[in-house]
Amino acid sequence: MQKHIVTAFEEELQNLSQKISKMGGLAENQLTMAIKSLENNDYELAKRAILSDKSIDKLELEVEEEAILMIAKRQPMALDLRRIIVTIRISSDLERIGDLAKNIAKRVIKINGRTPKSLVSGFSAMGELAKTSVKNILDAFAASDVDKAIIVWQNDKDLDALYNSIFKEITEHMKKNGDHIDYCTHLHFAAKNIERIGDHATNIAENIHYMVRGEMLSDDRPKSDLIKIS
Amino acid sequence: MQKHIVTAFEEELQNLSQKISKMGGLAENQLTMAIKSLENNDYELAKRAILSDKSIDKLELEVEEEAILMIAKRQPMALDLRRIIVTIRISSDLERIGDLAKNIAKRVIKINGRTPKSLVSGFSAMGELAKTSVKNILDAFAASDVDKAIIVWQNDKDLDALYNSIFKEITEHMKKNGDHIDYCTHLHFAAKNIERIGDHATNIAENIHYMVRGEMLSDDRPKSDLIKIS
Repeated sequence: MQKHIVTAFEEELQNLSQKISKMGGLAENQLTMAIKSLENNDYELAKRAILSDKSIDKLELEVEEEAILMIAKRQPMALDLRRIIVTIRISSDLERIGDLAKNIAKRVIKINGRTPKSLVSGFSAMGELAKTSVKNILDAFAASDVDKAIIVWQNDKDLDALYNSIFKEITEHMKKNGDHIDYCTHLHFAAKNIERIGDHATNIAENIHYMVRGEMLSDDRPKSDLIKIS
Repeated sequence: MQKHIVTAFEEELQNLSQKISKMGGLAENQLTMAIKSLENNDYELAKRAILSDKSIDKLELEVEEEAILMIAKRQPMALDLRRIIVTIRISSDLERIGDLAKNIAKRVIKINGRTPKSLVSGFSAMGELAKTSVKNILDAFAASDVDKAIIVWQNDKDLDALYNSIFKEITEHMKKNGDHIDYCTHLHFAAKNIERIGDHATNIAENIHYMVRGEMLSDDRPKSDLIKIS
């Protein structure tokens, strides 16, 4: 390829990466709003978290379209091709993270501020871990930093462990308070959604590893939760 | 393009479509096993449903890889390009359907045959609706039949309605039987998983519409469940 072509290709890749950063920023922000709305029973914030999902969905379609056109136009090989494929996959994970944050926000409205204080702090802690994973994995992608990606991948076990303890707390609360079962069910799903956001961060970590090293991370991610069911 | 190229392209598209049919067959079968294992508290069947997920995951990676190579090699335009893009998206939806069926099977093991009879029949009914949607949407894809795809898309409201009634039944059962809350929580998640399988069938319907007509279906799918939260 001539130099000006290579440059144009690099520029297009840069544009794609910038869209991923933008999606990531939106997803982090959406998750922050969803958790804060749960902490403060803030309907307006929950509604903003729900509405902001549309921009992430739109960006995912743009990333996919531009990536596909790049593949058709540039016929990239090896690392270049992997970078584009991984970009498509990561945009899909970020779109799912947005969906999950939106679903948490929708449940906040159903829960209507009835979350027991002890559980609110648990959700805050889960939210912080999930936000940190999303932030760190986007930094790892921007820097093609496999080691940083592997750390995020390994740390997901902490989020899993916290999820399991919160899951049990919610269940115990339901057992003690039969009349709280309705909204506690929404708490169960909201906690699961945060745990799944961590799983999407590990998907991204596996794809960064694939992008840089050309092979997927082995599937034996350390898991603290022996009873994990998703 | 010369004829032999066109023919080769069509052959490659055929191979991709065959892999999608194969994935679809596996996903349908996995869902059938998951539901049956819940109906009969059949651990062995549940374990088979869990294990069979690996073949779907493997096929998804093959479809993606072959589709990307086709785009790079053939630089297809318009309908041809849309067909390849849609194939990638559908394989991802089928992989998710497999994951959800696997998750149901994992929960069957936790539920350990304690599902109340009345709820078992509800799960069977949900399973039947979901299986029908998956089967019909794969037929619609194989025949590029937009009208059939739209019917699946519209019928998802029936699965949503059934999900909402089962969700309420499970919650009522929890309220009446505090000591059943643990496994009933797994029933809540299992029911949600079946409902989400229906959503993936509607995603596929939207992509068939996009493939054939070049535009996405509008987002105002009829929903019977006013309280729908995902």
